[in-house]
Amino acid sequence: MCSLPNESFSIELQQLDADDVSGRNQRTQWLLNSPAPPSFCNELINSVTETVLPQKKNNFSSNSKQYGGGAVLSFLQGLFPILGWGRNYKANMFKHDLLAGLTLASLCIPQSIGYANLANLAPQYGLYTSVVPPLIYAVMGSSRELAIGPVAVVSLLLSAMITEIVDPAVDPIAYTSLVFTVTFFAGTFQAAFGLLRLGFLVDFLSHAAIVGFMGGAAIVIGLQQLKGLIGINHFTTKTDVVSVLKAVFTSFHNETLSPLNFVLGCSFLIFILATRFIGKRNKKLFWLPAIAPLLSVILSTLMVYLTKADRHGVKIVKHFKGGLNPSSVHQLQFNGAHLGEVAKIGLICALVALTEAIAVGRSFASMKGYHLDGNKEMVAMGFMNIVGSLSSCYTATGSFSRTAVNFSAGCETVVSNIVMAITVFISLELLTKLLYYTPLAILASVILSALPGLIDINEAYHIWKVDKMDFLVCIGAFFGVLFVSVEIGLLVAVSISFARIILDTIRASTEVQGRLPGTTDTFCDITQYPGATTTSGILIIRINSGSLCFANATSIRERMLKLVTEANDSEENTKDNVHFLVLDVSNVMNLDTSGIAVLEELHRELVSRTIQLAIGNPRLRVINKMKTAKCFEKLGKGWIFLTIGDAIDACLSLKIADPSSINC
Amino acid sequence: MCSLPNESFSIELQQLDADDVSGRNQRTQWLLNSPAPPSFCNELINSVTETVLPQKKNNFSSNSKQYGGGAVLSFLQGLFPILGWGRNYKANMFKHDLLAGLTLASLCIPQSIGYANLANLAPQYGLYTSVVPPLIYAVMGSSRELAIGPVAVVSLLLSAMITEIVDPAVDPIAYTSLVFTVTFFAGTFQAAFGLLRLGFLVDFLSHAAIVGFMGGAAIVIGLQQLKGLIGINHFTTKTDVVSVLKAVFTSFHNETLSPLNFVLGCSFLIFILATRFIGKRNKKLFWLPAIAPLLSVILSTLMVYLTKADRHGVKIVKHFKGGLNPSSVHQLQFNGAHLGEVAKIGLICALVALTEAIAVGRSFASMKGYHLDGNKEMVAMGFMNIVGSLSSCYTATGSFSRTAVNFSAGCETVVSNIVMAITVFISLELLTKLLYYTPLAILASVILSALPGLIDINEAYHIWKVDKMDFLVCIGAFFGVLFVSVEIGLLVAVSISFARIILDTIRASTEVQGRLPGTTDTFCDITQYPGATTTSGILIIRINSGSLCFANATSIRERMLKLVTEANDSEENTKDNVHFLVLDVSNVMNLDTSGIAVLEELHRELVSRTIQLAIGNPRLRVINKMKTAKCFEKLGKGWIFLTIGDAIDACLSLKIADPSSINC
Repeated sequence: MCSLPNESFSIELQQLDADDVSGRNQRTQWLLNSPAPPSFCNELINSVTETVLPQKKNNFSSNSKQYGGGAVLSFLQGLFPILGWGRNYKANMFKHDLLAGLTLASLCIPQSIGYANLANLAPQYGLYTSVVPPLIYAVMGSSRELAIGPVAVVSLLLSAMITEIVDPAVDPIAYTSLVFTVTFFAGTFQAAFGLLRLGFLVDFLSHAAIVGFMGGAAIVIGLQQLKGLIGINHFTTKTDVVSVLKAVFTSFHNETLSPLNFVLGCSFLIFILATRFIGKRNKKLFWLPAIAPLLSVILSTLMVYLTKADRHGVKIVKHFKGGLNPSSVHQLQFNGAHLGEVAKIGLICALVALTEAIAVGRSFASMKGYHLDGNKEMVAMGFMNIVGSLSSCYTATGSFSRTAVNFSAGCETVVSNIVMAITVFISLELLTKLLYYTPLAILASVILSALPGLIDINEAYHIWKVDKMDFLVCIGAFFGVLFVSVEIGLLVAVSISFARIILDTIRASTEVQGRLPGTTDTFCDITQYPGATTTSGILIIRINSGSLCFANATSIRERMLKLVTEANDSEENTKDNVHFLVLDVSNVMNLDTSGIAVLEELHRELVSRTIQLAIGNPRLRVINKMKTAKCFEKLGKGWIFLTIGDAIDACLSLKIADPSSINC
Repeated sequence: MCSLPNESFSIELQQLDADDVSGRNQRTQWLLNSPAPPSFCNELINSVTETVLPQKKNNFSSNSKQYGGGAVLSFLQGLFPILGWGRNYKANMFKHDLLAGLTLASLCIPQSIGYANLANLAPQYGLYTSVVPPLIYAVMGSSRELAIGPVAVVSLLLSAMITEIVDPAVDPIAYTSLVFTVTFFAGTFQAAFGLLRLGFLVDFLSHAAIVGFMGGAAIVIGLQQLKGLIGINHFTTKTDVVSVLKAVFTSFHNETLSPLNFVLGCSFLIFILATRFIGKRNKKLFWLPAIAPLLSVILSTLMVYLTKADRHGVKIVKHFKGGLNPSSVHQLQFNGAHLGEVAKIGLICALVALTEAIAVGRSFASMKGYHLDGNKEMVAMGFMNIVGSLSSCYTATGSFSRTAVNFSAGCETVVSNIVMAITVFISLELLTKLLYYTPLAILASVILSALPGLIDINEAYHIWKVDKMDFLVCIGAFFGVLFVSVEIGLLVAVSISFARIILDTIRASTEVQGRLPGTTDTFCDITQYPGATTTSGILIIRINSGSLCFANATSIRERMLKLVTEANDSEENTKDNVHFLVLDVSNVMNLDTSGIAVLEELHRELVSRTIQLAIGNPRLRVINKMKTAKCFEKLGKGWIFLTIGDAIDACLSLKIADPSSINC
């Protein structure tokens, strides 16, 4: 590179150069004259507005065109989607919804009683929760498949956390009041998140965290069912594996357990699992696994009633209050000593419930090709739980298993939820007296049969293969739930997830770039594309980080100096040392004062090694910050380029024009 | 774009295309056949090795060549840099170092006594700390300018935190033992960080945090000096502004204070500040502000001795033990009840001391154009504090103010520290009896005179201008230190700093790209370069985030779908809807399972809108993860491109070849 070209070639080159230079200068001008940043106040206001205010234009534009209504109708349609699709609802859609709703109800009734039992509540509260919340969701929600009602994980959360404040065995009335208060808080938080457009909060429980958490929760829920399945009287209020197994072994030694409970529970569990196997083999029999739990409840109740097995040790439901949901307004407690604790439980339940519902809702919406607005869903869920808490319901949300049943039963709209709610309401009026003799072991087996769907080993293996850090989040949540408690499991998962983001920033790397063969202006990592060629004397380094900040600036500078030293060492024989360092900052979206300081330090250190620093392709935010910090003046305004190609051209032309300046 | 080109043009285009296509295909092959990722075990081992093991080759290669020594010599030179530069040390260098060392000592003696007083220790411990640590650092450290000894901020930290365990007024011996134990822990932590190559830990206190913390600490230290300056007997052990001011006002009411203390302190403070002003105006008189504190001490001591002012209410030092540093091995306590607390204080002191020393050392090293290895410095500091804790020294580090004096006095090497240590040692032997009558008010004014250097309002204003979030970190640390406590200030600063990294990831944005005029393959943000042109029917979107992960994947997907809707809305009249979405993922360094899931969902949703998704320029790590997750199969292997230009060409050729496929 050091032999000077002959004269004629040199003139030609100069002409070519002239075009090049003008284009390059123009591009640099574009770069330096890029739009000024908004003032701090404007930026702050925009940021708040963007987060808090609903983006009316985008949400409702298509609706308002379709129905030609005014702003009020638009607003109402936004709040109550039923006003939109209700007009187009047809009779043959109702046929499908009716079938789906009835199937759903037959699965929902035994599950609701079982989950109420899991939440340490009287069985009717589970059924109440399957009446009011689905009706509210039907007018406010926008998912067409979501089956609303009590779910296993939220029931577990409630029982695990509220039991620490009040023991339901000692004071069931105070416990029930606390459950309603928690539900009220959960609903308020959900509605507030939706109204404040904080939908992104749900994303903090990552996919991997949910997989691990659900797996752990399923095992914990399963272990809780041992109480009903074996017929234990004295059980632990803790949820971790060690405590539960200890309680089970203690019972085996100290209590006289009737084997009838176990035999009854296991035989119906096998029956339910067998129908599911048949349903999977023959898609037309999808209704069989859906009604099997109800069938089991009816059959076992009849068996117990006829054989009077309850006198021989089979534990039964006994207390069951029928009729319409009573009001629970007077039961809400806002002046207790535990208000802070209750609000915290409400927040955790709100987030977990939303995460489950939105994950389920979105995956089915994406199958049917429509889009679910997380913020609107939050408002709907919030109102449904607030109204629920006033009418003796505990925290409801969208259920994994029942939504899948609803989908395969061919539901068309959320009307299937209305059908289900009415069916459950009718059974509350008419059938509760019959449920007196339902054995607890059957409820346990109904819950147990729903658990395998929550444990997704294939997905855990997939996560392990693709991303080891995600797997750490997954097993962190899993073991946290299993061996400590439900909240700790969630906390571990969220902490690891965020620690990973910080770690990614701290461990930012740098990469040497080379020109891709056959291209003029495409530069790539030489480790990724071994065919990329480097230009001797010029080192192109890209910063592989979205942010050049206090956490990584020093290490990035040290890596760059190391790369320069290595390049010089390897080129020592040819006496063609590095004279130009082109720094590709196209990946850097943001830099702070530490980042700017490090760039200036790097420039000083390179000057002391007679190396010129050129900066290529800074982004708008980076340019604006460097301008404010008067960084261009220090680095040399002429050494900022829009593309790496421009930077290389400038380096090469300087090298040819004045080879002495680069002591070559 | 919809009118078909005529036939001859079409053939020409096809030929051109054929070349294009082969090049494009080749590039896509490069992309897809990029090197396989290292196995998980290899990656883990590499990562640990890179962090923990020293990179011998790069650290010592130049040295070993220079002196041709073996591995042992290299190792020893790495550990004791004095073996390297000591051979080239010349007499005229010593002349400079002697002058600098003597200047340093004259500043160091009064400051050390004052800082010992601030740390609630007897005055001789400050001088001890200026003897042993500088000598150890001289053989192990690699900075040439750093002046080692006690510093204000670490003294404040020690007194603020250890006072909470033991009150020095009640049990000074136990307090002193705890100080040595903390120093031992601090040294051990520092050495461990260096040996484990955890130098990056120091970066967690960002530049902005240091500015805020130092400003707050300076004010707190200044307020502590009111005790000596006014001559208060009963002072608070707390450090926050409110407690200190309350204590001062209480004293004004309850104690009889001698105004002599205040008059004496203030007049010498004015004298010291005046000499500093002269020193700044006339650079040749740099020694004047450096010796002014010592001069003040000598003058005031003489005044008090001659006028017997101590009998008229002027508070004096009184107890002052001279002689060589005694051993303090037996004073270290490793079995007390507060061991955990003591270790925590040691950790905080270790980090703050390292942060100050490395920040100062690096800024002077960068001025003189050499590089300071943070990990080696940590080892040197660690050993210096361990040895210090065994010889009655408290935590020492590099001082801001004295290093500047050392530098302006023209020091050449760390020998100036040796000269200083010997001078301090001689004064410990000979002069301590004279220091008996030194008034406390003078020590306060010596400390007060050093504080303005710690408050950097200009820098705070610069931070405010450049980066509002950094300013938040800065004032967070400032007010935390000022109104709560030193640890809380640090905690607030570090928390905001890391929260900002997470917030940056959560708030990731997307940007529409356009082709830059006059280029073939350069695509830029259209907001940054309003001149960039878009191709109708093709939407190019870049993800502006270093990581596509659980925290931002959903919002990025929603933003993209919104951009597609907007583009379609704006083009509704021309009936040329978006048919291709080119997703530029060049910025994305890493993605997790949530990110992959979102890409697949996006693809499904786009398919339902008859839009083809093309992915441009994925990075090595992204490609490998997508390969493992079998993502290419789902997105279509033919729709991954190395450059955005290739992706656009492929879209355009499909549009021309088969216009029916894009329902145009």
